[in-house]
Amino acid sequence: MTQYLSSVIKAGKNESYDVELAEDLLKANEERAAANRNWFKAHGIRVIEVIGSVGTGKTSLIENLVKRLRNRFKILAIAGDLGTTIDSSLIARQGVEVMQINTGRECHLDANLVSKAYAKIEQVKADLVFIENVGNLICPSEFPLGAGKRVVVLSLTEGQYMALKHPLTIMAADVVAVNKMDLAGVLDVNPEALVRDIVRVNPKANTAMISCKTGEGISKLIKLLELQE
Amino acid sequence: MTQYLSSVIKAGKNESYDVELAEDLLKANEERAAANRNWFKAHGIRVIEVIGSVGTGKTSLIENLVKRLRNRFKILAIAGDLGTTIDSSLIARQGVEVMQINTGRECHLDANLVSKAYAKIEQVKADLVFIENVGNLICPSEFPLGAGKRVVVLSLTEGQYMALKHPLTIMAADVVAVNKMDLAGVLDVNPEALVRDIVRVNPKANTAMISCKTGEGISKLIKLLELQE
Repeated sequence: MTQYLSSVIKAGKNESYDVELAEDLLKANEERAAANRNWFKAHGIRVIEVIGSVGTGKTSLIENLVKRLRNRFKILAIAGDLGTTIDSSLIARQGVEVMQINTGRECHLDANLVSKAYAKIEQVKADLVFIENVGNLICPSEFPLGAGKRVVVLSLTEGQYMALKHPLTIMAADVVAVNKMDLAGVLDVNPEALVRDIVRVNPKANTAMISCKTGEGISKLIKLLELQE
Repeated sequence: MTQYLSSVIKAGKNESYDVELAEDLLKANEERAAANRNWFKAHGIRVIEVIGSVGTGKTSLIENLVKRLRNRFKILAIAGDLGTTIDSSLIARQGVEVMQINTGRECHLDANLVSKAYAKIEQVKADLVFIENVGNLICPSEFPLGAGKRVVVLSLTEGQYMALKHPLTIMAADVVAVNKMDLAGVLDVNPEALVRDIVRVNPKANTAMISCKTGEGISKLIKLLELQE
């Protein structure tokens, strides 16, 4: 059988509808993100943003972290979602304050939406804030929110090529957590090869192999986020 | 432990940066999609669009369909991806023509990009075109491409709430395929509940429980796409 990859089209500046707008938008967001970062710093608040595609375990990860950290920190979780409060309710079961941001059709949070949490953060005197972005591995990476650390959650079930296919998101990560390691035995995915790709794309990123189901790797992740005792 | 979901913010018309632009953009895309639909119809070409998040098995699904249909149809596969040709190469192994569209930073294909395939479709005399959208469960649903049928691929590994969390995408589907059913035994996900949610969100959608690994459900899916003999 012949293998022929016949044509490759690249969407350039004039081929896609919304490139110009995107530039203004990104710039405005970056300014707002810088303001958020300064505000968090001035108030002594650590902020961890969690990015990942749908169903990778962002909510479970925040639940795991909250369980282990709620005695040492005053935590607020901000949960972004298109329209539901499913994730917020799951996190709230852990006994911490949760603020829901429903984005409607928007496929990512932005720094402006996050700045609406200032009053709530002050009200509950939070010193640790988790921000769960909307389930999407592409768009959130271009919209920094002003967090101190960005965790990208991949799931082993997504397959071998996640890092190579999403270099911009991997490059935007401080820590990449590979979740669902408990399923490693039944998947045709090589975790070592995935980690090699992550490191190749972003040599500065730390990686943690985790299972939000069994708790594997969560302690290591807490150290990588500089939240250990 | 007290459960308190303290605040819900909804991003409204004035709170997000890019709502106005979005409307023009969507309208322009819809016109282009209608033109594509007419062109495909006039040329007697069946077009199937495949939408799904990263790692749900869109490429594996197209490989499975191509294997079973390549003797009866002249197939062209169009593979959308941010930057790599990994998926194209996998599909091309099945001995069919593949056209790659790299979108760069764009998180979805649009009708304009698809219209660039006209010449290639005519050149290879394709009568069946598969379009694999960029891995993303949110953005592609708002950008119709002009396909005759839209398949949304969910993966059982993504968990229980995919249909409720992504109503717009589910509503845009003709067929929802739930992939990775071979893992049903090791996941804490109830496939029946997921299907109930899908049908609740979109009563018109057909559903197929499939495994691209074992081939389970692929024949049913071919019938739902009206591609059977």
